[in-house]
Amino acid sequence: MGAGMAPAAHLFGGIEAGGTKFVCAVGKAPQVIRASTEIPTTTPTETLAQVIAFFRPYALGSLGLATFGPVDLDRNSPTYGQILSTPKLAWQGCRIVEILQNGLGIPVAVETDVNAAALAEFIDGAGQGCDPLVYLTVGTGIGGGAVIQGRLLHGMMHPEMGHMLLARAPGDTRPSVCPFHADCLEGLASGHAIQVRFGPPETLHPAHEAWDLEGMYLGQALATIVTILSPQRIIIGGGVMHQPHLLPRIREACRQALQGYLPRLKTSSDVEAYIVPPGLGDQAGVIGALHVAQGATPSESKRASMTLPSDSSV
Amino acid sequence: MGAGMAPAAHLFGGIEAGGTKFVCAVGKAPQVIRASTEIPTTTPTETLAQVIAFFRPYALGSLGLATFGPVDLDRNSPTYGQILSTPKLAWQGCRIVEILQNGLGIPVAVETDVNAAALAEFIDGAGQGCDPLVYLTVGTGIGGGAVIQGRLLHGMMHPEMGHMLLARAPGDTRPSVCPFHADCLEGLASGHAIQVRFGPPETLHPAHEAWDLEGMYLGQALATIVTILSPQRIIIGGGVMHQPHLLPRIREACRQALQGYLPRLKTSSDVEAYIVPPGLGDQAGVIGALHVAQGATPSESKRASMTLPSDSSV
Repeated sequence: MGAGMAPAAHLFGGIEAGGTKFVCAVGKAPQVIRASTEIPTTTPTETLAQVIAFFRPYALGSLGLATFGPVDLDRNSPTYGQILSTPKLAWQGCRIVEILQNGLGIPVAVETDVNAAALAEFIDGAGQGCDPLVYLTVGTGIGGGAVIQGRLLHGMMHPEMGHMLLARAPGDTRPSVCPFHADCLEGLASGHAIQVRFGPPETLHPAHEAWDLEGMYLGQALATIVTILSPQRIIIGGGVMHQPHLLPRIREACRQALQGYLPRLKTSSDVEAYIVPPGLGDQAGVIGALHVAQGATPSESKRASMTLPSDSSV
Repeated sequence: MGAGMAPAAHLFGGIEAGGTKFVCAVGKAPQVIRASTEIPTTTPTETLAQVIAFFRPYALGSLGLATFGPVDLDRNSPTYGQILSTPKLAWQGCRIVEILQNGLGIPVAVETDVNAAALAEFIDGAGQGCDPLVYLTVGTGIGGGAVIQGRLLHGMMHPEMGHMLLARAPGDTRPSVCPFHADCLEGLASGHAIQVRFGPPETLHPAHEAWDLEGMYLGQALATIVTILSPQRIIIGGGVMHQPHLLPRIREACRQALQGYLPRLKTSSDVEAYIVPPGLGDQAGVIGALHVAQGATPSESKRASMTLPSDSSV
């Protein structure tokens, strides 16, 4: 194994912490999940108590936390491992890493949910061999992560792609749901935004104007990501993407926004190969969390996950 | 020295190829320029003949070309070293690397102008220690480059930050000058855009509305870059930035666009330290081209430029 935090004999724990639920898994290797559960996201006290209770029976070597952001990932910062100024107000300032570490008595490694998903997709999913790789999730909120030059993208903090500014569609005067930004991607196109602006996404007919706007805003966002980061591929997942008519709309809107300027994104089949769903489906985040628990990086963990025994009898 | 293309005894050539002029320099080390000249950008035949004539008298080991884009940087591509679909129509399809290589009989290494400038600023300028680092130039056109994880950012191609889509300011109905995009950064805020939309930039009074729009569009663009790439610092250079009133406007517009969401970019002094002019001034591009000639990468060339003799008598 690579720079793992525990010997291979140990089990690892992984959490994908999202705005709606915490997905928790226990495995020997990221792709070999022994047990898993889903816990609703309510308050930190309530949710984290249930999370700790789920993991406690297992002899875990370490835990990987893939969490919604913003989260402080800087080990030298006094607020390391804390949730920062999130619209999910109950979680603002939550010392989530410390609480899990104290509750379980094991090392906890933290990443953003979307960086962890990008890592998993890069190692075993739809992003193999694609560097840079961008992973965008469209769920309750919207976030983006990236593998660049063989590592996960961290900088001043981590990417906050959900808060990129958009040009509004003509005639769309409904307010943004983001408490910070009147015209950001999350404020106009997240699952929460659709819910508030039009109604529950799963009840809206495919011909509803909400989906035209959704395709247009996400296509515009991907075009902007392409001009700034030039990824080799973009993976787009999350609950809102379960609508089967949405991905084709996004691809076409991205293609139209770029107007044929980029030679490799001119045709419909170009964007079809370029903007793809996660190869690991809805498990990308939690599998990524298990990679994070192992201390994996994109460049070393391909090897790590291949040399670990694929023993499903653990 | 690092992975240089020629022994240290050789001279290197560097070209910053821009939409208005080609800046050419000869040096032993990137910071030690022995001779330089500026050649107007007209047609490839005319401009490149003058460029070759300038370099021919020198015994160069290699040449670094830092060029406007889009340019094909993929060595495995049949169009490697060619200018792609640029609005500068005379240059579209120009086999610029091959022409220089044949004309001078030496190896030519190619990068984008802005990636080269980012490299120079990372090694010796205002971006030291800042990874990721973004360099944006606002001249005749607009382009952006980046150092990420110790390397220059390449992906599907290279970044095309000038063509990111913007939200128009209310009331701005003047057309974009980009032949591809009705609302992109270059189309609304490049030097060429100011010229066509309002008049020659150098003749416009600081109170002219053109500068309000310029500050707003560039501030919006930087905010978008921050949400996607999370750079540790952004350097903004180019001819249009010679207007001393412009940088403060851009910083404030960026701060306002982010609305206090990012903890490290809340105050005026936060953005003042974060969005800065090039430490190497207008020479960042050509110094970067000399680094490129040496085959430098951000991670190895700090050492290279420090161990080369700073001998200005060559």
